[in-house]
Amino acid sequence: MTFTELINARTDAVDSMLCVGLDPDLKRLPACLSSDPDPVWSFCKAIVDATAPYVCAFKPQFAYFAPDRREATLERIIAYIRQTYPDIPVILDAKRGDIGSTAKLYAREAFERYNAHAVTLSPYMGFDTIEPYFEFADRGVILLCRTSNPGGADIEELRVGEEFVYERIARLAQGPWNKTGQIGLVVGATQPAEIARVRAVAPDVPLLVPGIGAQGGDVDAAVAAGLDKHGRGMIINSSRAVIYASSGEDFAQAAARAACATRDAIRDAKRKALA
Amino acid sequence: MTFTELINARTDAVDSMLCVGLDPDLKRLPACLSSDPDPVWSFCKAIVDATAPYVCAFKPQFAYFAPDRREATLERIIAYIRQTYPDIPVILDAKRGDIGSTAKLYAREAFERYNAHAVTLSPYMGFDTIEPYFEFADRGVILLCRTSNPGGADIEELRVGEEFVYERIARLAQGPWNKTGQIGLVVGATQPAEIARVRAVAPDVPLLVPGIGAQGGDVDAAVAAGLDKHGRGMIINSSRAVIYASSGEDFAQAAARAACATRDAIRDAKRKALA
Repeated sequence: MTFTELINARTDAVDSMLCVGLDPDLKRLPACLSSDPDPVWSFCKAIVDATAPYVCAFKPQFAYFAPDRREATLERIIAYIRQTYPDIPVILDAKRGDIGSTAKLYAREAFERYNAHAVTLSPYMGFDTIEPYFEFADRGVILLCRTSNPGGADIEELRVGEEFVYERIARLAQGPWNKTGQIGLVVGATQPAEIARVRAVAPDVPLLVPGIGAQGGDVDAAVAAGLDKHGRGMIINSSRAVIYASSGEDFAQAAARAACATRDAIRDAKRKALA
Repeated sequence: MTFTELINARTDAVDSMLCVGLDPDLKRLPACLSSDPDPVWSFCKAIVDATAPYVCAFKPQFAYFAPDRREATLERIIAYIRQTYPDIPVILDAKRGDIGSTAKLYAREAFERYNAHAVTLSPYMGFDTIEPYFEFADRGVILLCRTSNPGGADIEELRVGEEFVYERIARLAQGPWNKTGQIGLVVGATQPAEIARVRAVAPDVPLLVPGIGAQGGDVDAAVAAGLDKHGRGMIINSSRAVIYASSGEDFAQAAARAACATRDAIRDAKRKALA
């Protein structure tokens, strides 16, 4: 089963396009975990268990594990998700990008060491920096396309002939780069018009959409702009608004409620868009 | 002392623009290290000690340490270089790139955990993904600009008005993005005409130039194209041609000879260019 098939199967099975991002910030963990021997593990495990019924995917962010030598915890979290919830794909958000021989090593890092189903990549250096990941036929790569940070326009929105740089990426991801069907695209939620442009040139590619929740994207507009012809094809990520819904002892239950509400908002948006 | 001052001081002190890349590939390590308890550490230490007299910098490649859980070895190598050769800057080749709050974590990874003097970054997501690194005032960031891999043209060489994407990056790196003087640029050695274009729009920015040696770049042409007005400003990297110069027990001495010869070729090229 390919990554795209896995994410579609999970999306259909639970009627959810919500992805919960695992961004465990030590400064924001609930006080009740302060004496825990591995608070990042305990926090992430509790969040995963509480929100699993509502999600199509989990997305651990590598940067939250790297500065404090928490790679082993990251491995453990992904292994736990794969063992306990084998139907839920894990997207490692690492935004790697390097030349061919080095890309092979990064592919091994993401798919062998961490055993993620997919990894985020930067497309800046071109196709031969992406192709080595395709050797892992059951895994996916999700390319940065149009991000919603303020500086996202600096390069992504440069005009190249009749299109923007990010539209070129989307076109390459839909066609010449995607012979094996393993590519997805990152498109921020805050500019629905740009989601629509990406969807127009890349009708068949799954879109990873951060920016719902704490980043303030409008769910209805984003979903209307990004659904594919099957009424899915979106992996809508929320991190902080779900995982830090409460800083009290009820943090896991609060995360479950936030995940459920966000899933419902996405469901409603989908029904409106398809009506 | 800033990163740029440190690299200039080292370049001047030993009249070398050679950077040795530390890419320890387990499959290529000398057989004499096969029973070593930490062959990657022993190999890199021997290479560092043998080549230190000839280099302006060392550049460990993160990807060679990640798949096999060798982060502690990477930390140890950088700590060893800093302690033993405090005048030689270390560039961590990690090509990170993410939004502001996440970029701060990656800056901590590169500059606190690994304690590198500079880190390579992807500019795809724009300035606010680079700015957080400037909080570390004595460190540098080296942005991907024009890379020499075959796919490098896919995005980098798209035409934006009167310039290519990579020239836009160079212009931003010279001017609006570089208020603190902490930016360098990666420009591959195999296309000297492109080095010249980058140098034309970014006269004051240090250039990290991979592609000498195993990747086949022509030293004379690259140096002539990339020198700054002070007759330096280049960090010319060779990895495999130096560190795998011999697979025998003489691997360190062979690396020293290769580093010395490459440094000399770069020196000669500089003298010709300045003559």
